[in-house]
Amino acid sequence: MAAALWSTKVCVSTITRGLRRYGTPASAKAVLKSDPLEPDKPSVQTEIPGPRSRELLKELDTIQNTEAVQFFVDYERSRGNYLVDVDGNVMLDLFTQIASIPIGYNHPRLLNALLKTENRATLVNRPALAVYPPSDWSSRLKNALLAVAPPGLKQVQTMACGACSVEHSQKAMFIAYQRRQRGGRPPSQEELQSCVEGHAPGCPDLSVLSFKNAFHGRTMGALAVTHTKWIHKLDFPVPDWPCASFPILQYPLDQFVRENRAEEDRCLDEVRERIHAWEKKGSPVAGMIVEPIQSEGGDNHASPYFFQELQDIAKDYEIPFMVDEVQTGCGATGKFWAHEHWNLKDAPDIVCFSKKMLTGGFYYKDNLRPQEGYRIFNTWVGDPSKMVFLEEVVNLIKEEGLLGQVKDTGSHLINGLYDMQNKYPGILSRARGVGTFCSIDFKDAATRDKILNELRHKGIHLGACGNLSIRFRPTLLLTRNHVDIFMDAFNSIIAELKS
Amino acid sequence: MAAALWSTKVCVSTITRGLRRYGTPASAKAVLKSDPLEPDKPSVQTEIPGPRSRELLKELDTIQNTEAVQFFVDYERSRGNYLVDVDGNVMLDLFTQIASIPIGYNHPRLLNALLKTENRATLVNRPALAVYPPSDWSSRLKNALLAVAPPGLKQVQTMACGACSVEHSQKAMFIAYQRRQRGGRPPSQEELQSCVEGHAPGCPDLSVLSFKNAFHGRTMGALAVTHTKWIHKLDFPVPDWPCASFPILQYPLDQFVRENRAEEDRCLDEVRERIHAWEKKGSPVAGMIVEPIQSEGGDNHASPYFFQELQDIAKDYEIPFMVDEVQTGCGATGKFWAHEHWNLKDAPDIVCFSKKMLTGGFYYKDNLRPQEGYRIFNTWVGDPSKMVFLEEVVNLIKEEGLLGQVKDTGSHLINGLYDMQNKYPGILSRARGVGTFCSIDFKDAATRDKILNELRHKGIHLGACGNLSIRFRPTLLLTRNHVDIFMDAFNSIIAELKS
Repeated sequence: MAAALWSTKVCVSTITRGLRRYGTPASAKAVLKSDPLEPDKPSVQTEIPGPRSRELLKELDTIQNTEAVQFFVDYERSRGNYLVDVDGNVMLDLFTQIASIPIGYNHPRLLNALLKTENRATLVNRPALAVYPPSDWSSRLKNALLAVAPPGLKQVQTMACGACSVEHSQKAMFIAYQRRQRGGRPPSQEELQSCVEGHAPGCPDLSVLSFKNAFHGRTMGALAVTHTKWIHKLDFPVPDWPCASFPILQYPLDQFVRENRAEEDRCLDEVRERIHAWEKKGSPVAGMIVEPIQSEGGDNHASPYFFQELQDIAKDYEIPFMVDEVQTGCGATGKFWAHEHWNLKDAPDIVCFSKKMLTGGFYYKDNLRPQEGYRIFNTWVGDPSKMVFLEEVVNLIKEEGLLGQVKDTGSHLINGLYDMQNKYPGILSRARGVGTFCSIDFKDAATRDKILNELRHKGIHLGACGNLSIRFRPTLLLTRNHVDIFMDAFNSIIAELKS
Repeated sequence: MAAALWSTKVCVSTITRGLRRYGTPASAKAVLKSDPLEPDKPSVQTEIPGPRSRELLKELDTIQNTEAVQFFVDYERSRGNYLVDVDGNVMLDLFTQIASIPIGYNHPRLLNALLKTENRATLVNRPALAVYPPSDWSSRLKNALLAVAPPGLKQVQTMACGACSVEHSQKAMFIAYQRRQRGGRPPSQEELQSCVEGHAPGCPDLSVLSFKNAFHGRTMGALAVTHTKWIHKLDFPVPDWPCASFPILQYPLDQFVRENRAEEDRCLDEVRERIHAWEKKGSPVAGMIVEPIQSEGGDNHASPYFFQELQDIAKDYEIPFMVDEVQTGCGATGKFWAHEHWNLKDAPDIVCFSKKMLTGGFYYKDNLRPQEGYRIFNTWVGDPSKMVFLEEVVNLIKEEGLLGQVKDTGSHLINGLYDMQNKYPGILSRARGVGTFCSIDFKDAATRDKILNELRHKGIHLGACGNLSIRFRPTLLLTRNHVDIFMDAFNSIIAELKS
């Protein structure tokens, strides 16, 4: 089924490091509840948002637009996989702040890190990292980021958030592209002068190829490669860069192998066609960017074959192949990076991250390293205080074999979703997932939204994506027991809907 | 002189709130050293970078480009206005991490904030702020950001960094511009669809007007309004937006009143001309952005008259007048916001901030508030953990009357710089400043760089800007005593150069 898709070894990988990293599978029974203070089960006292949330909303609305606010959270009382809102409702959180909480709320290791004397200076003095780095900066990079670097990548640049990581990754692509164009010549005086004004030849007309339904962020360069909803882009003058179709596969994948291969080949042809078209337009493609699973766009999967071929196309055109792991990274798929499921011949040229990694940033190959200082730069270029916490997260993942737990919990979750869609084929379809990075579709958006709301009132908090899907984005500490709590609620709601 | 420029009341302000805010002037003698653990004076043991810095540099260079690294810092041992590098060199820090440390290193209030139980949940659980805000979010916004809001502005949006603040401010401008164009009609189906693909009419060709030598950040939209050095923009496909001259004034300002007024009028004419030209080009100007003092671009000042006129032009063309206070904000000029020196008729439409404010973000007028959720949005939209520290900073500024201290210390500093340039007219010129936000020029870049290096070896750390300047960007806790320590070193170095 969907979960099996990425375990198919389509080609023999030359990368063996990392394939079994930190994955010592913890059997379901051996998984210890790592936090005894976590609530045992959801408990809902009021409607959600409750009276206290609504009161706070009114107050906040005098200061900023609050249309996106769902409810206010008591972060002090939240613990582990459970979020507690300001009305005392205890919810099993399967969405975790848009997929950005790696090891649950108030994890004891994070609270301890806060109290450690040796972390204090890092937590209160934010440096201009690229100019005056702290004495322990290399070791923090090694312990937190390089310890989990995608196989084959050894360079890393921190950034404050996901959008900045995408923007600066693109800049690394543009620098590398123009360096190759110059063939070793230094930039001309005309280039040096015109770029300050924002003209060619110093600011050349280059582009980055992306995919329909892709989401990469909301600053101008990141928005140019984002193609999900109008709410993200309407009214904004973003460059018109090439956008190819991302495969829309049929699930369960093993029943549609031929159809899906044809769909992926169609998309790959489109990629080549778009590269030629933009070259012809005078806006050559300097790189391509893709999500391992299009998340905001609807949890759209593609096969390892698709990504392998995509990498081959990038190599043919000598452009970087960039993988955006902002949402898929940090273990959610049962491997640390989702692209490790693909058995690529070679590492991606750039892998960017944020969310559960707590810091933004990107790994990159040597040829994408800028040759001058201040090219990929800003005042803070990240935040070492986030590395303090990331180091704890990375160590916990290793020590507790959390990737194994994610695989185990994920298989329990996806099997439960398969059972549900078999039981209710008129309502549910397209269950899919890798690790606990799962989703399922509803017959229509109204039903999806109604069920999300009912789940919440049973104390299960989930998120939507695409037009018809709900997405599971739990912490890495989710267990079979949590899945059972969800399944019970889900089953009873759907059964009632059906009756 | 220059310092007097902004105290001239050119027009009667309708805004009185804030003019004397937190400025209870502390007389020089009454200023207590607020941190008894601060070193008494600089102390240099090795060359800078020293052997330990050079060793760490080699290590870091295997992970990322390190061309911008000056030396490695022992943040644990740094205290107050003094930075200690990894070789034990104690430097009076007048540059403070590119102007981003408001109350010195390891301030006891920041260290205490770290240990307060009520802050723990905020420090370890980073929420998706715009969807699941913490219970205390409104009160943190009020205590930290609204407590120091620019007079007349009551809406605020947090962001992670300066560049993101500029990008999302621009988006607020574009939304408002298109809303006005539509005259109350909802967006058309064609707009909603085309914007996802990145085409007109959904993504219209709009622009933002900026100034020569301006610096606003390094993501694509922010780079489009940045015009300082080639290192920031070369090779990047940024939009070609209108850019007018920023006044190049002659100093001391009171000796060149007529010349400077003519220069400012020339620039204002250019602003009008550029707005018409881009309108004609089909890329209408949706807003303008300006720094109160162009910092990265060379500490270029303009008069209140210039900014008042600029605001009038913005009003004439019905576009927002945005002030980028990323470097000038948070008290460095002796008022909380530099634009409070201008006696504007009305508040700026947008004021963005970052650096010493510890969080990025922007204040804005009601008409720039988006009407839908998820328009100005990302996963984190800021970081409440930074608000914990900002609240301490804001309270300290008020309780200790730090704006008064900045004015007093600043007048001592600028008078010292005037004395020096009178004494060494062949070497030094153009001393200028407001508060402690000061700078002075050297006869050539080589001399400037040599003196910066010699100062550092006497334990005074400063930064360069523009082609010929050094800039002072100290903490808000700088005293006359610190200035004297600098002046002694400066005087002896220049005297030696002269001899």
